[in-house]
Amino acid sequence: MKFEVTILGSSSATPVFNRNPSAQLLNCNEKFYLIDCGEGTQQQLTKYNLKAARIDYIFISHLHGDHYFGLIGLLSSLHLNGRVKPMQIFGPKPLLEILEIQFKYSDTTLRYPLEFFPVEADESRQIFENQDLIVKTVVLNHRIPTTGFIFQQKNRQRKLIKEKTDDIPMVYYTALKKGMDVELPTGEILKSEDYTTPADLPRSYAYCSDTKFDERYFETIKGCDTLYHEATFMHDLLDRANETHHTTALQAGEIAKINGIRKLLIGHFSSRYKTLQMLLEEAQSAFDNTDLAVEGRTFQL
Amino acid sequence: MKFEVTILGSSSATPVFNRNPSAQLLNCNEKFYLIDCGEGTQQQLTKYNLKAARIDYIFISHLHGDHYFGLIGLLSSLHLNGRVKPMQIFGPKPLLEILEIQFKYSDTTLRYPLEFFPVEADESRQIFENQDLIVKTVVLNHRIPTTGFIFQQKNRQRKLIKEKTDDIPMVYYTALKKGMDVELPTGEILKSEDYTTPADLPRSYAYCSDTKFDERYFETIKGCDTLYHEATFMHDLLDRANETHHTTALQAGEIAKINGIRKLLIGHFSSRYKTLQMLLEEAQSAFDNTDLAVEGRTFQL
Repeated sequence: MKFEVTILGSSSATPVFNRNPSAQLLNCNEKFYLIDCGEGTQQQLTKYNLKAARIDYIFISHLHGDHYFGLIGLLSSLHLNGRVKPMQIFGPKPLLEILEIQFKYSDTTLRYPLEFFPVEADESRQIFENQDLIVKTVVLNHRIPTTGFIFQQKNRQRKLIKEKTDDIPMVYYTALKKGMDVELPTGEILKSEDYTTPADLPRSYAYCSDTKFDERYFETIKGCDTLYHEATFMHDLLDRANETHHTTALQAGEIAKINGIRKLLIGHFSSRYKTLQMLLEEAQSAFDNTDLAVEGRTFQL
Repeated sequence: MKFEVTILGSSSATPVFNRNPSAQLLNCNEKFYLIDCGEGTQQQLTKYNLKAARIDYIFISHLHGDHYFGLIGLLSSLHLNGRVKPMQIFGPKPLLEILEIQFKYSDTTLRYPLEFFPVEADESRQIFENQDLIVKTVVLNHRIPTTGFIFQQKNRQRKLIKEKTDDIPMVYYTALKKGMDVELPTGEILKSEDYTTPADLPRSYAYCSDTKFDERYFETIKGCDTLYHEATFMHDLLDRANETHHTTALQAGEIAKINGIRKLLIGHFSSRYKTLQMLLEEAQSAFDNTDLAVEGRTFQL
């Protein structure tokens, strides 16, 4: 099952040096989840040949503009392009008010249902579930109410051994994949373990932006396979990071290490950094398996 | 005196094919006026090496998103980049409400004064004047209240003949440029016409987007030197143009011809047109001196 994320924006606060504000597109089993939506996200989707029309779920972490100013434009374009299927949006409650006032004055009645789910930043909770995954919030420590999100695959099914199952009616596949043995009309028993291999372990992706270093949210992200964590500043600007409720690259590395993460992605870089190599190296000094979450890169989760 | 416009966006409705939604930057005597501000305008300014910080006046024609969704991001970036000088914004009254609600929920108190001037779309009136120019509205016919804008240079001064005035104290230049004769302490009279050449004629730029063909606004734009006019569709889609309150390329050419315009720029192209040559040729069939107002081009007005 596909489980990958493509980075659409890596810039904090303002767009600079061809870095766009925050947005990421998660593909889980060919369903598409947009995480944050800074200005120009729809242009970024076009640039990387990703279809905005395929997005069915949007998660907005907080109401600083670099995380949502592109949402109204994306929703409007989908409307103009004839979307009819619903769009589910998860984000801070006032987001709906902000969207509605703009639809009102442009005299726009959306052609598709917009289903809005207000997200509170008081405690971590599950906010979504479908066949493929569960989404939980992470309560972050920022200047305004902010949540991260954990996208956690559900228990996976065992995998059929193709050579052995070609002669078995497909109607039995589901049971075998679920680990159940099957009795044929002839009385023959097919043991699941003979016809399938064990399921892949379910994987999880945690998205944490924006926040200061705060142990209170570590419990929620502990053991996630991949962690995206903001790393706005180098550690020599720790005071500035604390003051603005952001994280340094070194801290991001430490967070990954403390919480048993497999792979760390860092992003949300301050416009003071024209190049990013030193941020990467600083994070890697604490946690080796770190990569830069920059525009156009896709990571298998 | 510099009087030129740079096109930042030529797309209607949605960004496509590297065409961005509407925005233009007018430079009049090194003062900068932004006209409309679709999503991604701040990125377009960066792309063309234009300094957003130098903009002091913003004019928004109406509240369809492709004309203003980039404004909140631009204003926020100026705030984050430390702007202190005022920004004057002219646009439909609800625009301020839309901006304020977003500043409120991001807990943003702008570091610079935002001076908002509501623009009504009931009749053409002067809404701005400084040393260089006068701005008047054009009442357009669109689905929601919409105005165009005319940027009209004020009476220009006569130009000094450098070879003749090198030996004259600079203190007399202003009077000579205004056409006044000057009496020196020696009793000698300097005649303005001996030391200056006539002023250039004041020029004017009319911006008309979005609107259907409607003779009622012709009186306002008559005789303008340069007219930017939307040309969303080819004339074979006249019914669609009428229905959506837009103009065809042929109509745009006719409007320029009827109103004694010197040069026509067309833009706001439908996403159905991958290339624009046929729109240009259609407009030129009615008015030869037509050009495409596409991203990155600068026109002397």
